[in-house]
Amino acid sequence: MPYQWISFTTDYGLDDPFVGICHGVIARIVPDARIIDLTHTVPPGEIRHGAFTLAQAVDYLPPAVHLAVVDPGVGTTRRAVAVVARDGLLVGPDNGLLLPAATELGGATAAYELTEPAYRLPEVSATFHGRDIFAPAAAHLAAGVPPERLGPPIDVRDLERVTAPAPSVRPGAITTEVLTTDHFGNIQLAARGDTIADAGFVEGQQVTLHMGEARHIVVVGRTFEDVENGELILLVDSAGMLALAINGASAATKLGLVRGHFPECVISGPYS
Amino acid sequence: MPYQWISFTTDYGLDDPFVGICHGVIARIVPDARIIDLTHTVPPGEIRHGAFTLAQAVDYLPPAVHLAVVDPGVGTTRRAVAVVARDGLLVGPDNGLLLPAATELGGATAAYELTEPAYRLPEVSATFHGRDIFAPAAAHLAAGVPPERLGPPIDVRDLERVTAPAPSVRPGAITTEVLTTDHFGNIQLAARGDTIADAGFVEGQQVTLHMGEARHIVVVGRTFEDVENGELILLVDSAGMLALAINGASAATKLGLVRGHFPECVISGPYS
Amino acid sequence: MPYQWISFTTDYGLDDPFVGICHGVIARIVPDARIIDLTHTVPPGEIRHGAFTLAQAVDYLPPAVHLAVVDPGVGTTRRAVAVVARDGLLVGPDNGLLLPAATELGGATAAYELTEPAYRLPEVSATFHGRDIFAPAAAHLAAGVPPERLGPPIDVRDLERVTAPAPSVRPGAITTEVLTTDHFGNIQLAARGDTIADAGFVEGQQVTLHMGEARHIVVVGRTFEDVENGELILLVDSAGMLALAINGASAATKLGLVRGHFPECVISGPYS
Repeated sequence: MPYQWISFTTDYGLDDPFVGICHGVIARIVPDARIIDLTHTVPPGEIRHGAFTLAQAVDYLPPAVHLAVVDPGVGTTRRAVAVVARDGLLVGPDNGLLLPAATELGGATAAYELTEPAYRLPEVSATFHGRDIFAPAAAHLAAGVPPERLGPPIDVRDLERVTAPAPSVRPGAITTEVLTTDHFGNIQLAARGDTIADAGFVEGQQVTLHMGEARHIVVVGRTFEDVENGELILLVDSAGMLALAINGASAATKLGLVRGHFPECVISGPYS
Repeated sequence: MPYQWISFTTDYGLDDPFVGICHGVIARIVPDARIIDLTHTVPPGEIRHGAFTLAQAVDYLPPAVHLAVVDPGVGTTRRAVAVVARDGLLVGPDNGLLLPAATELGGATAAYELTEPAYRLPEVSATFHGRDIFAPAAAHLAAGVPPERLGPPIDVRDLERVTAPAPSVRPGAITTEVLTTDHFGNIQLAARGDTIADAGFVEGQQVTLHMGEARHIVVVGRTFEDVENGELILLVDSAGMLALAINGASAATKLGLVRGHFPECVISGPYS
Repeated sequence: MPYQWISFTTDYGLDDPFVGICHGVIARIVPDARIIDLTHTVPPGEIRHGAFTLAQAVDYLPPAVHLAVVDPGVGTTRRAVAVVARDGLLVGPDNGLLLPAATELGGATAAYELTEPAYRLPEVSATFHGRDIFAPAAAHLAAGVPPERLGPPIDVRDLERVTAPAPSVRPGAITTEVLTTDHFGNIQLAARGDTIADAGFVEGQQVTLHMGEARHIVVVGRTFEDVENGELILLVDSAGMLALAINGASAATKLGLVRGHFPECVISGPYS
């Protein structure tokens, strides 16, 4: 079997049998495949959140077919695609969800539209393409069906993209925005961790965070324990990204952040 | 091994180790079985919700022992049963949870009460029969123990049943009720999709929905995109059932629905 | 492979890919291992809750490496450890999380600090030791690496401990505290079920519960159905512990309990 593993990322939530049904569809096609559920609680329809969640995870997964479905356009004219990357395959809607992960996997080298009926379920519903199109495609790919058998090729430059704004960095200031928040209330920003050095900030110093109307004092640090309980810290998170956190509490709650909102952040202070 | 797969549906939630403990019990009895977790967030004690969730999923699962536990009567005199259907086995409480799925699996042909101590855990608690009775029974069945070894036969006509009210359909009007709502706020009704045609409604037309005191305009369509953002649509969902949805939002929220409530819905309009 | 199974317990929640990433890390090291997710919704940072959750589950799991991460001190000087018990191995932070389970598994006989770089990921972040240290250690142990290869030995008497207060029992009175609450709102107390007999209480009698300022009448029973709908019952739960429940409702809600709070409970009444 070319791929023993299928990773699975959706916004289906866990309140319904949608995820389990897709597991069943895969099991019927390729019983020996094993599935790693990455997360199924991407906020509904938040393509960007899903895209960066998957991209930050793939380096830690075994070689796999990466099945991802965050698909507010289900049943419309958006294409269903398989994307070939150097270090894996990706299956999902052509709405930008897959490409950041493809980049992490060495870059997209080919793409195919999922039109071949032999690799779909016999009946395709208007609202559940995860079950009817995407899970079957991922299963057939894991079983060794060559991607080009699934449908006509698409130029990878024509695939939809989602982008995070590039941060603006100069000595003494980083301008970026919120990328995601996690279960602990840590806030990941759309800037890599090395922007701290680029801006000339050093561990232990205080900087000022402007987010919307509000202003906060933040300490540049390395771990949650570098600040007192309740203090804000700016650190490099486990994905190598700039992040805001609070020792022992939720930074997202303290800063009034809502999942799915991405306010601009300006971090400024003395530099060396 | 007669069944490689066990599907698993409960109202145990994900906040506690109950589901994991049942996985452990199964692994100790039949280590090579593989489990598909269908959902564990059936609203607590909502037998009807669990029954239709399972029934709408089984067609997509591989041949399996279907283990389901939504069991408000745990520890009382309700029976624990294994049900034999043409295309699979089912294990759970005799409270109506299993029969809609048995019907989807070709019909119940036999049933047995789970009384044989050899196929339970040595100690049976008063409150966790999923661990002590149902998971062991499912595991032993998957391992090949014949169902009749688990206890005395029960006439399948004596099994408890849950029913959804049959819809009432005439030209220009469908009277039905809410069956379930999902993670996206889509509302599934207790009527099959073909009632749209039976009532003489056609795609693109407007109909009127009466639910409780409220009245709403709804467009008959096929996919979420057939209506503007925020508009209500009446469509056939991925289980082949009539459903109410909103493009880009939660119909359940807009209509003020609460999980576990099943108000009557009357859909009326011009017919052709 | 010395251990086919890895059990996995965390406070990572299910909203992020943290759990899936750890599954990926394990799959890359020991692809044939199988993981039982016990629960990932331990309240954030609640070491005691995680410790007793794991301890009450391990008896029902197959022989396993038990990986547990509830780690408010991640990135600080707290040690990362592997603990050898008679009937299994445990991996996690040295903050008390592992020892109650080790006791259930026959007692801790040795412990090692996880310092050996060969059994960590090449880069260790400051905030995600589940991915970088604990999951790799559990995977290597499951693959057969001897625990002593992971780092220097620690005297098991020097491991951190969490304790639940011993209940105080005399004829006619049990003084204890809340240990955990579950998804159904059942409240587990820090006393074993046999304290009911020790206090001289018998099934069917009424006792008085003092919790904080409030006083409640509670019936001593065996199953939820031993009381009317809405009445409080004192029973022995499925873990063999004393518990408060309500037939058909949440005792935690009725008594105003919050997860992570452990008020004292005094249960008193006539005894025989």
